[in-house]
Amino acid sequence: MTGELTTPVPTRWVGPLHLSGDVAGEVEVPLATYESPLWPSVGRGARLSRLVPDGIRVSVVDERMTRSTLFIAPTAAAAVAAGRDLEDRIEELGAVVQDRSRHARLIEIDTEVVGHLLFVRFALTTGDASGHNMVTLAAEGLMDHILRGHPELAYGSISGNYCSDKKATAVNGILGRGRSVVAEIEVPAGLVVEQLRSSADRIVALNTRKNLVGSTIAGALRSANAHYANMLLAVYLATGQDAANIVEGSQGITYAERRGEGDLLFSCTLPNLIVGTVGNGKDLPFVEEALERMGCRDAGAPGSGARRLAGIVAATVLCGELSLLAAQTNQGELMASHLVMERRSATQS
Amino acid sequence: MTGELTTPVPTRWVGPLHLSGDVAGEVEVPLATYESPLWPSVGRGARLSRLVPDGIRVSVVDERMTRSTLFIAPTAAAAVAAGRDLEDRIEELGAVVQDRSRHARLIEIDTEVVGHLLFVRFALTTGDASGHNMVTLAAEGLMDHILRGHPELAYGSISGNYCSDKKATAVNGILGRGRSVVAEIEVPAGLVVEQLRSSADRIVALNTRKNLVGSTIAGALRSANAHYANMLLAVYLATGQDAANIVEGSQGITYAERRGEGDLLFSCTLPNLIVGTVGNGKDLPFVEEALERMGCRDAGAPGSGARRLAGIVAATVLCGELSLLAAQTNQGELMASHLVMERRSATQS
Amino acid sequence: MTGELTTPVPTRWVGPLHLSGDVAGEVEVPLATYESPLWPSVGRGARLSRLVPDGIRVSVVDERMTRSTLFIAPTAAAAVAAGRDLEDRIEELGAVVQDRSRHARLIEIDTEVVGHLLFVRFALTTGDASGHNMVTLAAEGLMDHILRGHPELAYGSISGNYCSDKKATAVNGILGRGRSVVAEIEVPAGLVVEQLRSSADRIVALNTRKNLVGSTIAGALRSANAHYANMLLAVYLATGQDAANIVEGSQGITYAERRGEGDLLFSCTLPNLIVGTVGNGKDLPFVEEALERMGCRDAGAPGSGARRLAGIVAATVLCGELSLLAAQTNQGELMASHLVMERRSATQS
Amino acid sequence: MTGELTTPVPTRWVGPLHLSGDVAGEVEVPLATYESPLWPSVGRGARLSRLVPDGIRVSVVDERMTRSTLFIAPTAAAAVAAGRDLEDRIEELGAVVQDRSRHARLIEIDTEVVGHLLFVRFALTTGDASGHNMVTLAAEGLMDHILRGHPELAYGSISGNYCSDKKATAVNGILGRGRSVVAEIEVPAGLVVEQLRSSADRIVALNTRKNLVGSTIAGALRSANAHYANMLLAVYLATGQDAANIVEGSQGITYAERRGEGDLLFSCTLPNLIVGTVGNGKDLPFVEEALERMGCRDAGAPGSGARRLAGIVAATVLCGELSLLAAQTNQGELMASHLVMERRSATQS
Repeated sequence: MTGELTTPVPTRWVGPLHLSGDVAGEVEVPLATYESPLWPSVGRGARLSRLVPDGIRVSVVDERMTRSTLFIAPTAAAAVAAGRDLEDRIEELGAVVQDRSRHARLIEIDTEVVGHLLFVRFALTTGDASGHNMVTLAAEGLMDHILRGHPELAYGSISGNYCSDKKATAVNGILGRGRSVVAEIEVPAGLVVEQLRSSADRIVALNTRKNLVGSTIAGALRSANAHYANMLLAVYLATGQDAANIVEGSQGITYAERRGEGDLLFSCTLPNLIVGTVGNGKDLPFVEEALERMGCRDAGAPGSGARRLAGIVAATVLCGELSLLAAQTNQGELMASHLVMERRSATQS
Repeated sequence: MTGELTTPVPTRWVGPLHLSGDVAGEVEVPLATYESPLWPSVGRGARLSRLVPDGIRVSVVDERMTRSTLFIAPTAAAAVAAGRDLEDRIEELGAVVQDRSRHARLIEIDTEVVGHLLFVRFALTTGDASGHNMVTLAAEGLMDHILRGHPELAYGSISGNYCSDKKATAVNGILGRGRSVVAEIEVPAGLVVEQLRSSADRIVALNTRKNLVGSTIAGALRSANAHYANMLLAVYLATGQDAANIVEGSQGITYAERRGEGDLLFSCTLPNLIVGTVGNGKDLPFVEEALERMGCRDAGAPGSGARRLAGIVAATVLCGELSLLAAQTNQGELMASHLVMERRSATQS
Repeated sequence: MTGELTTPVPTRWVGPLHLSGDVAGEVEVPLATYESPLWPSVGRGARLSRLVPDGIRVSVVDERMTRSTLFIAPTAAAAVAAGRDLEDRIEELGAVVQDRSRHARLIEIDTEVVGHLLFVRFALTTGDASGHNMVTLAAEGLMDHILRGHPELAYGSISGNYCSDKKATAVNGILGRGRSVVAEIEVPAGLVVEQLRSSADRIVALNTRKNLVGSTIAGALRSANAHYANMLLAVYLATGQDAANIVEGSQGITYAERRGEGDLLFSCTLPNLIVGTVGNGKDLPFVEEALERMGCRDAGAPGSGARRLAGIVAATVLCGELSLLAAQTNQGELMASHLVMERRSATQS
Repeated sequence: MTGELTTPVPTRWVGPLHLSGDVAGEVEVPLATYESPLWPSVGRGARLSRLVPDGIRVSVVDERMTRSTLFIAPTAAAAVAAGRDLEDRIEELGAVVQDRSRHARLIEIDTEVVGHLLFVRFALTTGDASGHNMVTLAAEGLMDHILRGHPELAYGSISGNYCSDKKATAVNGILGRGRSVVAEIEVPAGLVVEQLRSSADRIVALNTRKNLVGSTIAGALRSANAHYANMLLAVYLATGQDAANIVEGSQGITYAERRGEGDLLFSCTLPNLIVGTVGNGKDLPFVEEALERMGCRDAGAPGSGARRLAGIVAATVLCGELSLLAAQTNQGELMASHLVMERRSATQS
């Protein structure tokens, strides 16, 4: 049976991470990856989180899923007029969405006109689903409805790339797509030395020079971090997410400041975490099990499971990011630890 | 044994794809994904490739892996002078690389100065490995060597984000990172109608409006496509690649033109395919098997296996991209086919 | 008297342009530039506009000026909480603005949190002024007010670069800054041949390949045009504008389609035209005169003069853009016409 | 005579600036602008430069002008093959350039293939000219020559936007266009307090939070500064430059670090200064006079005048940038000083 073929990606649970804020308590995290050094690297951050009073403080800032439809108008003026009309009729369009879905709610409409092309970006909340299919279904209903009311418009595309899904763009960070989360840790000076073999000043300098200046000359787009994509891929795979969304997920910002006498205030801001606890892939047994072990399947208000998952993902990213940056402050440490870790993991597995 | 835990990602082989040019013949491709509609979608493109004389024409344009180191100079003038000196001494630095590695070859040095910060981007060929570790190891040796010869410089970072790895940036597309591949297909007008339920004119219009104009307003960065990331993730996972590299992999360009009396010339240009047939993850049994079945383990000149793999990946992306775009030219088709496919795949598995 | 020194930039009036839509009638436009070929180039587009029934159709889509302030919070959670509070209190903050200004009106607040940094972007309408000083003054009042009500926040900066002023960014196009205008012309096939020495198909192909694909590989940011900056600079200088705003002004999109039997539908979409008819530089005698001759000083509702000016600017951009693109469809034409024009202008002046 | 009409932009000479490094000595700079507060702002930086031993240290890193031509190939493979052939024949192509021009020298060819489109970016040195026309003329000759040797290629465009001229892109900063200059100043702690009313720590913090983090969330492209465009526009206008090139000129990076006991190391890195001392606009009497007064017309090796001008421009940018940033570290200072300056300038003029 070809249906039974699977790709068994090596996986380990790391942690627990100590969290506070919008997600609280201790939680272990599964990481599916071919890059075994990722496990001890995130593990080091997790250990640090348990040594700090508040652990990693998590704030979930926003949530939404989007789809941008494309209509063709006869003229630019007609495109502008239709766009204004749609923004004015958001309540009516919201009702169209609600008629077709139990969970989807229309919360915002953004229109952009280029010549006689009209792009209409719909933002919806989608409960505990990441919402890809929910917004596509909603967008189809909305297009039908809009085209009936605007005979001057023609169908352009169900997706006009102003959404934008799994692409490196600026719109998602600015208008929002997925869950926006900030994870933050405050590490006393002594622990920075002892656990991270570095100092606040050196980590701050590295973050400025590498993540901010280096990314700038690389022509980075709303992206200033060392390796968010690694942690995102590993958690996404292990929890049944559509891991292609690490593309926009990778566009986040690491920020560090020295506090007091050498303490380190370190944060990871991730505006585009696209995760769900229901939907495609989430009913696979190992995914169910992982989500339950992480406490993301407990009954709660719609969206609370996915919100918790997003918070845990952000904290996991922080663990791996801080660990790697600290290592890079020391000449020669990265390769040495990689080699040790790969040897160790080879022995164990 | 935690070491034995795996995340079993559902996988199917699709195809065969019919290829010509730098990679020739028929080849099946494994796709590991939670998004089951991807299989029939790529499958449709593969079928089309078998109906066309040349199939999908593949050109492998370039190959290299990069790492950018960061040095701190006392002044901007010192940074500029050191940068010039390093570019002049590329042969000497190449020898340093060769001393530490059988496969790595230094082919280019790019320096960028920001104030007194000196970023030095090393480009190497790395045989059949994707080369992440090889360039890091080489960069460490190079930094040691350079710091000995330039006592005025201090260690900044083994990676200064001008590499750049798994981040949405412009530098990789412009200076090169990974394998750069163009895949192209020429579809007679009749087949466009019959197999894709569309026309060359409609696909060209959609590509211009959505992938080019829509991406532009989204603030895309060197990215003009519908969903490269989906196909990349699936092949990368099934062949043991570090799939976090889909971030830069996703930054490619779909281009379409009408030829003659309604034929379609359709291409996918992927400047940043980071794949290998040896190294991390490649010795897992199912990866070995997959690479062999794809003909990427046949003895050949160093790099020939990874080049073949890169070509196959690009062709696979083309299959899925063309299939989705064709579907989006028709109002209502995307969701309908998604639902059918998900139902079908649910029945089968 | 040093105060009397001026730089006399060569200037000509071109046109008249024939306009319809949000700006209607015939209007001449002054162009101050050292690049004399710009005059006949825009002049060719203007002549074409007079040969077409509707001339250039102008739509003014939006208007606002922005300033993003920066606050420092003790923690990320505090930054998020304060940001939410400010968005909730937009009416109160609007009153603060109105107390200090006759013309400024607060219309939107966008907050972005990075770690414990809180960026607050205020959008205001500013009547007939471009509004740089008006929004800075308003932002100062708002910061004072906010810091009194939020003792946990500290002053970060009156401008946090999320505004963003005179920089190449994505935020202005997406959230809006300045006046957003679309200019469009529909040229019958015969006139495309006769006046532009080209065809709709060739202009469409060039626009796709050069402005869309070429800009994409150049790593352009929300920018797909040949030379908007040239026309913007020339009109801005001649009308007393702060011409450094051509940086964001240059980020616009040229779009072209073939209509019917070879007619050309051609548009320029300019989301960030920052112009005013009052304020800095507008009381210089030659500026007064220019604005009056263009009909931008006629009494009208607040903002109507600046809106008219923005519409005229967009139409001028279209004239020069269409003329240059048409020239570039013909091998050898650009240089030949440049040489002729420079010789001609040398003779005349 | 319409030919005699000019736009008299208010102009003042500021300084002198004290320079060292690739440009040395004291030099005054003319600033043409409608924004009068710019004069005292740059003036403050200039005064500071005279109080510091080395003044502003200037490094000219690179120089070139570029034009990217576009060819249409029958297939992607043909485009790739032709591109490789051209890169191999750089010496032959260099001779073609030299045959048509006394000053232009071909120094680099970069090819990019998208599907069957071949973009060829030629980089030339152009002596003391900014080089716009020189590269266009050279590119025309090169296209003629190439099309004769490659009958399979068709003319696409004399400019394919991969140049790229006056557009916000990444390619210019990465591959180079114009003169690349770093200007740097080291200010003792006492002078930071006395002259700038600030401290190294506060200026460093502001630069990180505003210019680096704030620009990142704005979706900036290779741009991290407060207002380079203002200074660039003013010097460009006063010295007869094509000021539309401030678009790419504005894409530079301000970087600051604390040194020792509170000294400030502050730099402006400007990769894309497009200036000349001969060519269009440079023979206007007031331009001649300005260039002579700045020492940019002294006989010297070809290019030395333009190099000196580029260095002076970068130093001028530094003066204005440091002055504004220092002002923004203090709540309320920006608006207060603006108002004072505008009042003062109103009185004087």
